[in-house]
This record gives sequence, C-alpha cells and structure tokens, in this order.
Amino acid sequence: MPFVDQNSVTDIAIIGAGTIGASWASYFLARGFRCRVSDPAPDVPERVRTFVTQSWGALTELETATTSIDDALSRLSFWDDPVTAVAGAQFTQENLPEKLDLKRDMLKRLDAALAADRIIASSTSGLTASSMQESMAHPERLVIGHPFNPPHLMPLVEVVGGERTSAEAIRWTADFYDLLGKKPIVLKKEVPGHIANRLQAALWREAVHLVLEGVGSVEDVDKAVSLGPGLRWAFMGQHMIFHLGGGEGGMGHFIDHIGPAVQTWWNDLGSPDVSPGMRAALLVGLREATEGRGYSELAEWRDEKLVRLLKTLRPQAE
Amino acid sequence: MPFVDQNSVTDIAIIGAGTIGASWASYFLARGFRCRVSDPAPDVPERVRTFVTQSWGALTELETATTSIDDALSRLSFWDDPVTAVAGAQFTQENLPEKLDLKRDMLKRLDAALAADRIIASSTSGLTASSMQESMAHPERLVIGHPFNPPHLMPLVEVVGGERTSAEAIRWTADFYDLLGKKPIVLKKEVPGHIANRLQAALWREAVHLVLEGVGSVEDVDKAVSLGPGLRWAFMGQHMIFHLGGGEGGMGHFIDHIGPAVQTWWNDLGSPDVSPGMRAALLVGLREATEGRGYSELAEWRDEKLVRLLKTLRPQAE
Repeated sequence: MPFVDQNSVTDIAIIGAGTIGASWASYFLARGFRCRVSDPAPDVPERVRTFVTQSWGALTELETATTSIDDALSRLSFWDDPVTAVAGAQFTQENLPEKLDLKRDMLKRLDAALAADRIIASSTSGLTASSMQESMAHPERLVIGHPFNPPHLMPLVEVVGGERTSAEAIRWTADFYDLLGKKPIVLKKEVPGHIANRLQAALWREAVHLVLEGVGSVEDVDKAVSLGPGLRWAFMGQHMIFHLGGGEGGMGHFIDHIGPAVQTWWNDLGSPDVSPGMRAALLVGLREATEGRGYSELAEWRDEKLVRLLKTLRPQAE
Repeated sequence: MPFVDQNSVTDIAIIGAGTIGASWASYFLARGFRCRVSDPAPDVPERVRTFVTQSWGALTELETATTSIDDALSRLSFWDDPVTAVAGAQFTQENLPEKLDLKRDMLKRLDAALAADRIIASSTSGLTASSMQESMAHPERLVIGHPFNPPHLMPLVEVVGGERTSAEAIRWTADFYDLLGKKPIVLKKEVPGHIANRLQAALWREAVHLVLEGVGSVEDVDKAVSLGPGLRWAFMGQHMIFHLGGGEGGMGHFIDHIGPAVQTWWNDLGSPDVSPGMRAALLVGLREATEGRGYSELAEWRDEKLVRLLKTLRPQAE
C-alpha cells in the first residue's frame, strides 16, 4: 500500500526530546514544518524551546532556516500523549533512550494508533529495526533514520530497514530526508552501529592504542588527524582518497604499490578494550589537551568551526 | 654538540625529487629558501619546475608564498652529485624511494661528507630511523620528518628519531618545521606507519570491510565519512570529539555511558586483508562512484576543496 505523499507532510511528530530529538525539532522547524513533541520529562517544553532558540543563529547563517525564531516557536507544540502527537502528523521521528523494551512498547502503541500510510523513523544508533518491529501490526513502515549528531547541522542520515520493513518505506524515508535537504545514505544490510559510528569507532580504537602504547599524547594523536588526513575527510572518504592516491592508475595502482605497506599497518593495528586503565589514561591526556578550557568554551569553539566549515563546503557538496 | 642555528638556514637540499620531494621543494621555496635538488632521473629539472609552477597559485592564495614564481624558480638549482647538493645546504630533506638499502647507502654518503652540525631529515613513511642510521658515523643527526601528502599544503609533519638519534636533533627538527609554518608532532616511540597513516589505515580497513560485507557501496561508505564524522575531523581528533560528546562530564562520562556500545562495535569491526578479491570489489565500486570522472578532473576538485578548507580553518588553527 502506498505511503502518504511526501509533499503533503506539514506536521512532524518528535517522540522523545533529549539532545537528538530537540536537534531534529530545530531542523524540521527550520525547514518550515510544524513540530509535535512528546516526552514525559517535565522540563521538555523549556529545554526544547531553549535548544531551538540557541540553534537558530547557526541555522539562519547556513540558510537552513528562513523564518524568524518567533515564527518557528509558534510552530512548536507539546503533547502529553504520544499517540495524540503522532495522530496529527504525517511523519514521526522517534528518539527515545536506547532501550529495546522502551522503544518496542512505544512503537507498538504508535503503530496501533496510526493510519497505515504513515512512516515511523527511529533515530536509534545501537538497535536494529528488526529487533524493534516484532510486535508491530505494520512492521513494514518502521525505518531507521539515524542522524549524525547534531542532526540540525550534520548532513548525514543513515537509512536502513529491518527484515520486515518494506523497500517502499525505505525509499520513501530516504527521499523525504533528501527533500528536506539532508544527505541520506541507504544501508543494504543491518549491522551494529550502522556505518559512520563503526568508522569512527575504528579510528578511535587505533587512536586509543597509540596513546596507551606511549607513541603519542592524546593531543598529538588528535593533531595527527586534524592537521593531516582529517582535512580530506571533511569532503572525501578513504576509498576515493586512495583512488586518487594511485594517480592515473587509480585504486588498482594504489593497491599494487602501497597495498603491502597498508597490510603491514593493518597487521600491526591495536585492539584495546574499553577499560578502567584506558579511561584513566585518556583522562590524564585530556587534562593536558584541554589546558583548563571547560565544556562551554570548547563546545562553542567546535560549533563555530563546524558552521564555518559547512558554509565553506556546502556550495560544492550538492 | 650543537646543531647549526635554525635562523642561519638559507639553503635546503632535497635528495630525491619524486612527488614528495617536488612538493617539499615548493614549500621551502615558498618560505623563501634556496633549494638544491638532486635526483638521478633525467626529467627531474623539468618535472620539479612544472610542479612548483603549478603549485604556486595555491601557495600564493594561502599566503604561504609571497614572491613571484620567477623569483622562486631562480632559487631552485639541480645537482648531479647529491654530496655537492647537501654540502651547500644547512638542512637536508631526503625523499628517496622506500627501499632500505637505497636510503642507507645514500645516508652513509651524505653523512660522511657533511659537517656534524647539520641535520638530515627523512620523509620515509614506511621505514624507521633506527633501521636507516646503522652505518652512519653521526647517527644522532638522522631524524624522520614525515610530511602528510602533499607536503606543500598539509600542515602535519611527524617527527621521530631512531635509537641513536639525539634528543637535541629531534627538538631541532621539530622547531625548524614549526619555524617554517608547519605543524610538527613529535612521536615518543618508533612504530610502523607513524601515527597518521595508521589512523587512516584503521579507518580504511573498516570501510573496506563494510563494502565487502555488502553493507554499503564504496560511494555510500565514503559519504558516511564526509557528510558525518569527517566534518569534525578537519579540526578535531576523536579523543576531543568524545570528550565533548560527554558534555560537562567529559570523556569519563562518555566512557561510562557510551563505552559499552563502543566496545560492541569494536568487537564487531572487520579485519579484511589486501587481496585480489578486495581489489576487484573496490574497483567496481569506484567505477560507480567516479561516474566517468577521470584523474585530472577529480584531483583538481580535491585540491580546490583542500585549499578552500585550509583558508577557512587556518586563522583558527594557530
């Protein structure tokens, strides 16, 4: 059965409004939608309004938002009952805590109440759609739409279905994010952590290894990213980087010539575990690296750079 | 014994002028030095002059170069005999092919001819200083100064000594690159691939795994970098990213809450080898990803983005 026309979506439900939900709300409001938020925490209306208000400057600078903040806040509503919230929406983005039982119960309730032509997307980073759709009457409409944090700024959304999700629902969801200005990628298979978090975890594992082995400080290992390969990762993935590293001969030439060296490095990569010793070593290194700069100062520095970078790259990322 | 005063360096010898040597020459010329190049290949003078000329626009745009290209080329000389090349220089950057015997022989010759107060830096990515300094009379002056390609644009230089390198030589070399406007990091220990290439290899290994497992196409796995975590890697390493990911509680809070999920992903990371099957799969994926765009077009796109990015980030990277 066909899903609702994407161009007819005017209202989006946000179920669960922690950091991810609030950031999604900012983005949807910026793109002109009405947002219907439901979250049992008593401070949610205040927190979400504050988040939206604080994010509006960056969204305006990036030309993602084109209305006043007052107009945006007038399109934001809060609902005690999640079923009422989704009933008035043509698309639902679920962002509950990463607890399977919690998500399953909520999805079952929403599914039972919603017309069958409505998609439900889940922001989950750690769970699979297959594990969440078990008790749904319409499991075909459950799609994972995993944003990269923070959703209101990062272009990437990973889209993947479960065993019982329909191909049409996956396509609908990817197309809808695309229509909104996001850059969705569709995974062909469920896998723990989707793609981006696994790549990030792989990089971090070696970064942790090099600190624990005493090769470099936390600060220097970080610099080895941001002053070197990281400058390309902002606009290219590693496959294309090595393809161009092979010159006219491309990836084939690269593998024939540099492949043996890469294999040597692969064989030597570390595999530390998350542990109390590792935690302690990183805390010592971060104390040096942060040089007394606290969270607010560093977060502000990060966000200012990110917006500047997005502005620089965006005209070409299309 | 003390090394030559860094501020008295006027001439730099480039031994081996392939891609890395030519790019170092561009950088040193841009910073106002005379460059004495020695490489047995007959087309080297033409190739290096062409490289410098083509790189001058970007170097000028970045304000790394402040003279005319004619002035730069007038400071570039070519020498058949590497010993003559280094004899007139106060600093030597060696960039021979990655063959241990070749490098060892050359370093022995240069070492025998040079005053003991001159540093020799090697650009090697795959060899250790310990393995190259064996037959030198003054092994204490051999330091690895591994640039990230291309050296004329990338800020990072990895500095590391061998067992017999002096601490003073390592400090001298790091300070000298710093004086030139590079961003050196000093490794506390020799390790195959230094730091940046290992981090890049770790990321690529998982990227290859996800393609081989059929989770995502080459193009989509690349997008999962450049539209997500890569946007931060251009200005932050993963340690600081996760430290801020923990909010006010920092890395400790992050590990306590997200650590178990990260451990799950670490346990599930792939470990493919460089193989004919892997090579073939990547070539198929790159054919789709490049959509007929050839090397020149893609390399131009890459370099234009890189310069734009460096311009955007540089005022803050200091």
